[in-house]
Amino acid sequence: MLKNNVMNFIGCDAAYEEADVVLFGAPFDSTTSFRPGTRFAPPAIRGDSYGLETYSPYQDRDLEGCRVFDSGDLELPFGDPSKALEQIEERTAVILKDGKIPFMIGGEHLVTLGAVRAAVKKYPDLNIIHLDAHTDLRDDYLGVSLSHACVIRRCWDILGDGRIWQFGIRSGEGKEFKWAKEGHTTLRPFDLEGIEDVVRSLAGKPVYFTVDLDVLDPSVFPGTGTPEPGGVSFTELVRAATLVCRGSRLVGCDVNELCPVYDQSGVSTAVACKVIREMLLAMGNGGKE
Amino acid sequence: MLKNNVMNFIGCDAAYEEADVVLFGAPFDSTTSFRPGTRFAPPAIRGDSYGLETYSPYQDRDLEGCRVFDSGDLELPFGDPSKALEQIEERTAVILKDGKIPFMIGGEHLVTLGAVRAAVKKYPDLNIIHLDAHTDLRDDYLGVSLSHACVIRRCWDILGDGRIWQFGIRSGEGKEFKWAKEGHTTLRPFDLEGIEDVVRSLAGKPVYFTVDLDVLDPSVFPGTGTPEPGGVSFTELVRAATLVCRGSRLVGCDVNELCPVYDQSGVSTAVACKVIREMLLAMGNGGKE
Amino acid sequence: MLKNNVMNFIGCDAAYEEADVVLFGAPFDSTTSFRPGTRFAPPAIRGDSYGLETYSPYQDRDLEGCRVFDSGDLELPFGDPSKALEQIEERTAVILKDGKIPFMIGGEHLVTLGAVRAAVKKYPDLNIIHLDAHTDLRDDYLGVSLSHACVIRRCWDILGDGRIWQFGIRSGEGKEFKWAKEGHTTLRPFDLEGIEDVVRSLAGKPVYFTVDLDVLDPSVFPGTGTPEPGGVSFTELVRAATLVCRGSRLVGCDVNELCPVYDQSGVSTAVACKVIREMLLAMGNGGKE
Amino acid sequence: MLKNNVMNFIGCDAAYEEADVVLFGAPFDSTTSFRPGTRFAPPAIRGDSYGLETYSPYQDRDLEGCRVFDSGDLELPFGDPSKALEQIEERTAVILKDGKIPFMIGGEHLVTLGAVRAAVKKYPDLNIIHLDAHTDLRDDYLGVSLSHACVIRRCWDILGDGRIWQFGIRSGEGKEFKWAKEGHTTLRPFDLEGIEDVVRSLAGKPVYFTVDLDVLDPSVFPGTGTPEPGGVSFTELVRAATLVCRGSRLVGCDVNELCPVYDQSGVSTAVACKVIREMLLAMGNGGKE
Amino acid sequence: MLKNNVMNFIGCDAAYEEADVVLFGAPFDSTTSFRPGTRFAPPAIRGDSYGLETYSPYQDRDLEGCRVFDSGDLELPFGDPSKALEQIEERTAVILKDGKIPFMIGGEHLVTLGAVRAAVKKYPDLNIIHLDAHTDLRDDYLGVSLSHACVIRRCWDILGDGRIWQFGIRSGEGKEFKWAKEGHTTLRPFDLEGIEDVVRSLAGKPVYFTVDLDVLDPSVFPGTGTPEPGGVSFTELVRAATLVCRGSRLVGCDVNELCPVYDQSGVSTAVACKVIREMLLAMGNGGKE
Amino acid sequence: MLKNNVMNFIGCDAAYEEADVVLFGAPFDSTTSFRPGTRFAPPAIRGDSYGLETYSPYQDRDLEGCRVFDSGDLELPFGDPSKALEQIEERTAVILKDGKIPFMIGGEHLVTLGAVRAAVKKYPDLNIIHLDAHTDLRDDYLGVSLSHACVIRRCWDILGDGRIWQFGIRSGEGKEFKWAKEGHTTLRPFDLEGIEDVVRSLAGKPVYFTVDLDVLDPSVFPGTGTPEPGGVSFTELVRAATLVCRGSRLVGCDVNELCPVYDQSGVSTAVACKVIREMLLAMGNGGKE
Repeated sequence: MLKNNVMNFIGCDAAYEEADVVLFGAPFDSTTSFRPGTRFAPPAIRGDSYGLETYSPYQDRDLEGCRVFDSGDLELPFGDPSKALEQIEERTAVILKDGKIPFMIGGEHLVTLGAVRAAVKKYPDLNIIHLDAHTDLRDDYLGVSLSHACVIRRCWDILGDGRIWQFGIRSGEGKEFKWAKEGHTTLRPFDLEGIEDVVRSLAGKPVYFTVDLDVLDPSVFPGTGTPEPGGVSFTELVRAATLVCRGSRLVGCDVNELCPVYDQSGVSTAVACKVIREMLLAMGNGGKE
Repeated sequence: MLKNNVMNFIGCDAAYEEADVVLFGAPFDSTTSFRPGTRFAPPAIRGDSYGLETYSPYQDRDLEGCRVFDSGDLELPFGDPSKALEQIEERTAVILKDGKIPFMIGGEHLVTLGAVRAAVKKYPDLNIIHLDAHTDLRDDYLGVSLSHACVIRRCWDILGDGRIWQFGIRSGEGKEFKWAKEGHTTLRPFDLEGIEDVVRSLAGKPVYFTVDLDVLDPSVFPGTGTPEPGGVSFTELVRAATLVCRGSRLVGCDVNELCPVYDQSGVSTAVACKVIREMLLAMGNGGKE
Repeated sequence: MLKNNVMNFIGCDAAYEEADVVLFGAPFDSTTSFRPGTRFAPPAIRGDSYGLETYSPYQDRDLEGCRVFDSGDLELPFGDPSKALEQIEERTAVILKDGKIPFMIGGEHLVTLGAVRAAVKKYPDLNIIHLDAHTDLRDDYLGVSLSHACVIRRCWDILGDGRIWQFGIRSGEGKEFKWAKEGHTTLRPFDLEGIEDVVRSLAGKPVYFTVDLDVLDPSVFPGTGTPEPGGVSFTELVRAATLVCRGSRLVGCDVNELCPVYDQSGVSTAVACKVIREMLLAMGNGGKE
Repeated sequence: MLKNNVMNFIGCDAAYEEADVVLFGAPFDSTTSFRPGTRFAPPAIRGDSYGLETYSPYQDRDLEGCRVFDSGDLELPFGDPSKALEQIEERTAVILKDGKIPFMIGGEHLVTLGAVRAAVKKYPDLNIIHLDAHTDLRDDYLGVSLSHACVIRRCWDILGDGRIWQFGIRSGEGKEFKWAKEGHTTLRPFDLEGIEDVVRSLAGKPVYFTVDLDVLDPSVFPGTGTPEPGGVSFTELVRAATLVCRGSRLVGCDVNELCPVYDQSGVSTAVACKVIREMLLAMGNGGKE
Repeated sequence: MLKNNVMNFIGCDAAYEEADVVLFGAPFDSTTSFRPGTRFAPPAIRGDSYGLETYSPYQDRDLEGCRVFDSGDLELPFGDPSKALEQIEERTAVILKDGKIPFMIGGEHLVTLGAVRAAVKKYPDLNIIHLDAHTDLRDDYLGVSLSHACVIRRCWDILGDGRIWQFGIRSGEGKEFKWAKEGHTTLRPFDLEGIEDVVRSLAGKPVYFTVDLDVLDPSVFPGTGTPEPGGVSFTELVRAATLVCRGSRLVGCDVNELCPVYDQSGVSTAVACKVIREMLLAMGNGGKE
Repeated sequence: MLKNNVMNFIGCDAAYEEADVVLFGAPFDSTTSFRPGTRFAPPAIRGDSYGLETYSPYQDRDLEGCRVFDSGDLELPFGDPSKALEQIEERTAVILKDGKIPFMIGGEHLVTLGAVRAAVKKYPDLNIIHLDAHTDLRDDYLGVSLSHACVIRRCWDILGDGRIWQFGIRSGEGKEFKWAKEGHTTLRPFDLEGIEDVVRSLAGKPVYFTVDLDVLDPSVFPGTGTPEPGGVSFTELVRAATLVCRGSRLVGCDVNELCPVYDQSGVSTAVACKVIREMLLAMGNGGKE
């Protein structure tokens, strides 16, 4: 008898019960302010993950040895951010309740808020490590408070001062940078320097890790809504992400803002796939003892 | 002294006071269910209109002889359809109040609702002639009622039975077709046959004309969110649109659903430009007596 | 507990046991002579099928009422056509053995040979109805006999004279047209005229139906390896395909030669999806009595 | 000993001495008013001609039986239209002097002027049959008289009234259409009706045939500088071009305005290739007696 | 009453009278030797500038605090470089006469000559700082002396030895490099080293600054006519350009050679926007005391 | 009399007899496992080489002073790797027999095997220097042993241990890396460090040099079948390749895996052209004494 056509991220074939990490896609982009299209990232990433190897020479680990379940994509209502965030929160909560780590693939960056809402209910002392080109600290964007340009500000509404660590930031309004400097978040502009210290300082505390892929230089990651030249290299991102995923008490994470239509070479999708692979390998043990 | 860089649709250089028709863009696409990006249509159309002539051999008229003002684009809040519709309604109302005909360039099809709300306040006996590949008659789409897939249903909520005339429809759910057939709208599937009769039957009654460009076959109009093969030809559309614009008591109109990123040949934008030119020429007198 | 990410063609969610028709993909393109890339068609078709409705106003039928199982894609060895054909034959044989109709999505046209080999074993009196821009009747291509340019000739090796009915053909070598005329196949050039008569004449006989989508005009189907202007329209193809699928004793079929990378508008994929939907609806009863 | 890499249009491998027709490319586009890039048409056409067959089922003729020499491309100075036209005139004159028919592949439409200048020196009673979307009858364009938008007007400067026959025209300024109507040229708008009569009426007189491929509908020919929806079909163009090439005393011809970068599907290049093949076949005897 | 649709580069909304800097576009590319299309850069840059912030964390300055007027684009005659240069010279002269700094957006690099001609009339001791991948020092290109490949040579015709400072050069003919070394210009190959010293050495002298964006590595700036791998990074360019704009007695500048059609990701346009923003901020005081 | 249209890589116009190096294209990609299309690389490279200068400021050499013959492309049978390899071996053998250095342009990487087979017959003590992102050391790929993923393993079958030097490798299965480490090849992961030492250690021994261009970072070389972020820079590759070509006893080389369709900016092709130019210059004396 022929079998169903199950589509997972490469090497993520564990049964749900035995999985340590659970992938899901959040294909939502209704609040994108410049160029929409991140909704197509999760299936593109799954599809092109088959151009990858499961083995990483960076970490000498293999996805075959990890225990990851891919639960597919949510079906989110375009044009209604509140409802979309509720569904994301619900899925995240289920995964957390079952003692697993949720790994969300966006979608625009607003989706992070849904996951953080669920995570903070289980881990009230949650910290966020945030890699991005943009501050995402506006209080509203054209009068809308549930916007991808406000997502970290909305997380701050929940977590308060001193719990958010931003890296790679190179774009925003002057007043956002000022607001951050007033002590609301710790913002490292332009690069990822100091992330090792932050990881160390958060040892033992629950960490949610959110990677807006536009932190990368658009030379290697053109496929995103708002490309910002002057970003970090693929190697720098992988090093930092590996560090966070291995060194932190990670309780959830996401990778977002791939917009495949703007990169017809497929390189951006390949980059996203490899970042996700390295994060998964760093979270699991990848066949190592 | 150097002048400001004013960007109008070609030939639409009348002063506001003297204009008969007022163009504006409604760059909104937050509820698009498949491929977003229509927000970039209005500037693309203005830019590529300079590849057009102002003269039409189809009608032997020239935009130079028409009186059209281009009032630019609204700045609409992504992710908040209600607020976006309010702003559209407000702009439309101003134009109507000043005794001019509003001509809106979308954006996704939901924007029509804002314009219709304003029009029906001035013309309670409003009729809608609707060209589209899709029924747009769902009551909700994934739980959202303000969706591009529901826009004609929302117009029906206001207008009621017997006031909406649909042409070219070739996609929808079975129950939408059924609902239309129950007498709520008059739906002509696949082509534009009979539009002349409808125009005649509506003589003297106020008509709002909404053109979803995906009524065209995607061979000539690939740049749209949800392409539907089997559509009408450019010549058929121009003939029908000219007929409506000349023969009706037109009180408002829109052209929507161009999504430029999906047609890098620029043909779809050229098509949109020419449809708009022909409609403007048919509405004005184009230098003729 | 979260569920696996099953990816089917829209509306093809029947269980294998209850299914009448079984879809599978044959992502193979090693012998493509001009522009390769059809291997990416099956996942592209599944993905974009969600831009479709399950309901067809052409046939007033709905996929929800059909019983189709999607068994996913074969993993075929690039560079080894013999081995690839064996795997295709094997999958087809399983489906036939279970009393179901195999519906293969290519891939290049050579894949048809694998399915025909299996079908002819069960139905020795098999006939083939073949829609294509190309004759595909070469005896070899650059010395290779298992080539997409030879596939119908290879089928003829098995079936012999008078069993192959070709339509829409507008490209080939002079000697191929001559060879056909010698009575080996019945070849209708340029269009699909007479297909109704052929269907009628084959009443009761087992028919394999193979649709090379490049039979379509490249205006509406640019995404193919060897585009040939002068083809049939979408409406003509759908009408003919519906006719064959309803009127014949269909024992297997395929749709092939979509090459998504050459059509970044997605229209070609949308066309393929809709052709497949209409064929599935014509084969099933789509909720009708 | 290995041979040089000679690149000809497919099947055009005759020696110069024995050739009846001589191809050459005129890769020039400095005066293009909208979207430049036709300079890349000649090599694109040669390259993709290998996706064609040499045999045409339309005419049942084969390029193998024709005698065509491909003399490659001129190296034209961008930014200096006068000098470019001189070089084109010179190449055309050589071919004419040797008793062969020049077949030029543009480039933008201005290149026609160079060839016509040479042709009229040999054939003072020259007539021009002109297929195009655009009038090309402006006296100047932004003050430039050697512009692609003026090319037929420049030819008229040489030939005078009653010698130019235009077909398919659907774009231009009102005064251009008026000027034509005053008897300067014979202009058939929108389609190719009546071309058979013109060919017949010119029997025995020398004819130069210039095909601006944008006469085609952009659905099948998007790859051009100024796409104009509402054009003729591929089949209509091939029929008309075959008619002219067979029925006239053809002394020179060109095919121009393919701009490959605007059609990444390659269909426009395939169309250009096939139009050229059909014209070459109609001019030669293609293996027929 | 509704307002006109004024399109400026983001944040450049000063009135002409109060402006320190005046932007204008020079959409001309008739002499481009490889891939044309830079004519579309000025509107693309204005349009995508709205994806930028007005604030720069690099300089901690904001365009809101600068005084820049955007005077739109010249309408230049394609195919007539002399006339185009005259119009550019004229616009530049007006701006200079009014005591403002002209900031031109190309177009191809030849446009610089028009601006330099105007600048040298006001400032006979003008120096040029030139960033580029190419020498641009040919005396002619295929017999044409007004060519983008000759522009710096033409400037040298006016300025003479020792007044032109070239950086980042990595492509040209051997004899161009030799000619430069003979003392005609100061040419720094490959990178931007030593620009600080040059700026210092020119203190007080009038400087025209011309940036051919192809000095950048094509990884981050693929959208240009002649991409040359091995270029400088975005950060290096911004640092150098900021240094020149702050440290020099700048009397005019331009940014040229963006060719948007060759980068459908939009990254090249985003890069151009950000380079222009940083230059404008460095020239003004951006809200700082 | 007009001449034939000979198409060479720029500056490679020597007669065969006098040439030191002979270029040829091997347009084959039937075993490509992810995205095919490298068959189109050789003509794309020739065409775009005319955007290059023949002079290199990196080496201060000029192709005009080198003696290179371009023998065009093989016509290889798609779908039959054995036969394709035979033809490649044959062409390579002819060139070697005539005392010249073969320089092959792929195609996929499998083509290297054909050239190596010929080279090892003449030079039994052959060594291979291999630059690549991928190990290419699988014993088979989906059961196929003649696959691009196995090509270096197939070379090892011939050469045995200690004769293959791999650089830049960052992707492969765990067991491939392990197999290499067992002493079969010398594998330098991630970068090109140590290549100078290898060149020195191989002094006097015959070296075949194979460059899979995907060793480059996809930021500058997106146009390839399987892009792997984290690669080397253009400058690093040119430096290493120059070093190998100058310092080794080079008996043959190839550059492969450009897939033009995946980089519509043309940058990847420009990169390939420049790498080839630098290699040719380093092999010849480029006008130097």
